Amino acid sequence: MSEYSIGVDLGGTNLRAAAIDHCGKVLEKVEGATHLSAGRDAVVADIVASIVKLRSSGGAGRLVGIGIGTPGIIVIEKGVITESPNLPGFENFAIRDEIERLLKAPVQLENDANAAALGEKWMGAGRNVDDLVLLTLGTGIGGGIISDRKVLHGFVGMAGELGHMTVVPGGNPCACGNNGCLEKHASATAVTAMARMLGLGEDVTAKSVCEMALAGNAKAQVVFQSMGSALGVALASLVNIFNFPLYLLSGGVLPAWDLFAPTMFEELRRRSFVFRNTATRIDKATLGNEAGLFGAAYLPFQSRIVIPDA
Amino acid sequence: MSEYSIGVDLGGTNLRAAAIDHCGKVLEKVEGATHLSAGRDAVVADIVASIVKLRSSGGAGRLVGIGIGTPGIIVIEKGVITESPNLPGFENFAIRDEIERLLKAPVQLENDANAAALGEKWMGAGRNVDDLVLLTLGTGIGGGIISDRKVLHGFVGMAGELGHMTVVPGGNPCACGNNGCLEKHASATAVTAMARMLGLGEDVTAKSVCEMALAGNAKAQVVFQSMGSALGVALASLVNIFNFPLYLLSGGVLPAWDLFAPTMFEELRRRSFVFRNTATRIDKATLGNEAGLFGAAYLPFQSRIVIPDA
Repeated sequence: MSEYSIGVDLGGTNLRAAAIDHCGKVLEKVEGATHLSAGRDAVVADIVASIVKLRSSGGAGRLVGIGIGTPGIIVIEKGVITESPNLPGFENFAIRDEIERLLKAPVQLENDANAAALGEKWMGAGRNVDDLVLLTLGTGIGGGIISDRKVLHGFVGMAGELGHMTVVPGGNPCACGNNGCLEKHASATAVTAMARMLGLGEDVTAKSVCEMALAGNAKAQVVFQSMGSALGVALASLVNIFNFPLYLLSGGVLPAWDLFAPTMFEELRRRSFVFRNTATRIDKATLGNEAGLFGAAYLPFQSRIVIPDA
Repeated sequence: MSEYSIGVDLGGTNLRAAAIDHCGKVLEKVEGATHLSAGRDAVVADIVASIVKLRSSGGAGRLVGIGIGTPGIIVIEKGVITESPNLPGFENFAIRDEIERLLKAPVQLENDANAAALGEKWMGAGRNVDDLVLLTLGTGIGGGIISDRKVLHGFVGMAGELGHMTVVPGGNPCACGNNGCLEKHASATAVTAMARMLGLGEDVTAKSVCEMALAGNAKAQVVFQSMGSALGVALASLVNIFNFPLYLLSGGVLPAWDLFAPTMFEELRRRSFVFRNTATRIDKATLGNEAGLFGAAYLPFQSRIVIPDA
């Protein structure tokens, strides 16, 4: 009998879920908004309804389990989100246990960037390697580390906070308490903040700054060079630390690759002798915003808890 | 029958070897100088002679294998040192295979900082954890990462080059091509360089600068504060990246702990919310310069290749 799992990508804006078989084939997918304004219980009910729908259409397959990717800081052991600015109301709520109780199926919780890294490893740009690092360049910068085919969690589950690596010791202040965090110098938010500083307009977006740069605007180009430089500093340290074969970038800023990559590679080459002396690859992730869904769905396959049919 | 292994610590100055049983008890130890001026073959002959001596005195035990820790960049798969300024003549020489051939026993090669980290995990300050990072503060700064009880190697074997993390993007130039490497701001060499810059004398040593600082010399104290600050920046990134329970410091600068640790912890606390929110420990390593010997000896136990008695 074939096996499938259900992956859920619970974001602050969108709630997506998919039934995916053990070969990575999407059997069915449901997608909707995360109705945070309706309250936590309503969101949980939506999650449960999505899973029930996917489960009933699972056909002859056997459900291996359910994986849920969410933003914020997860305490893996407890299945709890301890901090998540994007999911108000979910902090310290026993989301894993509650959904397990409602569905009578094993549930695993994972940080969304970790899930995305695992998804890229399973079905994306990292399928041919056992070790990789993923940086998601969005509003902030998330990180996921896959070591020996598994997510590197650390002892609490907080590993991979790569957006808070210090790249400019006296740099921009971050809400985390630090100065010069990578995400304050290389995220989409950092791109728009720098564009504003350079007088490119108050209502710019990462996309509009990218368009200006492509059209030849020198100030907009400087913004992406600065972003590339910060990324290069972080990647150089990561390459020297891990010596992994692959480092992936994903997120909304990726279309600006040609604008930031030259500076990024220049910094990286100069700052990392490990990079210069090995066949290390820095590349674009390929699953886009589906990566987290694949990664969440892969979690139950990885632990291989086979549960009886409902 | 009891088992033992032989660990070799091949340094640029000293050559040490020990027979150690599976409980970490040192059965016998030999120690001497590394006679680099006599040429590579003479050094290899010394290594072989040390091992033969330890082996013949191994008594009733069964030799599990031989582990060798060396400075420089090791390509694990090939058992070759590709770059090692401290061991001229050994570059690209098949040291592992040569010693295996001469002794007819399985040999494993490991970078010295990785071996020290493994030694601390096996018998030192890290014996109660599965994951740790070790920074060796000496002439340079070496790093070793133990993840899930094993050395993290990366795909070539170059992981753990923590001395070359960028902590000051426009900082002191490093021979590796980078600016602001941790080891240019926090090693014993960096301490003496900073002391010279502050006019504390041309022939200062890390030890003499430490003594000046303890005696109340404000400039010497600033040197260690600067060193502590650089260490704090690096540790904050490492803690945010790994979320491991333990980060160890070792090496010749360790006696200055009280001088650099306050600034180090201040930076770390401010720069790492993971540190502030978890029971992460930053501590002194406990095996001193024996750590590499223990780690080298542990390598054969880890892979459990049992070879017949000689």
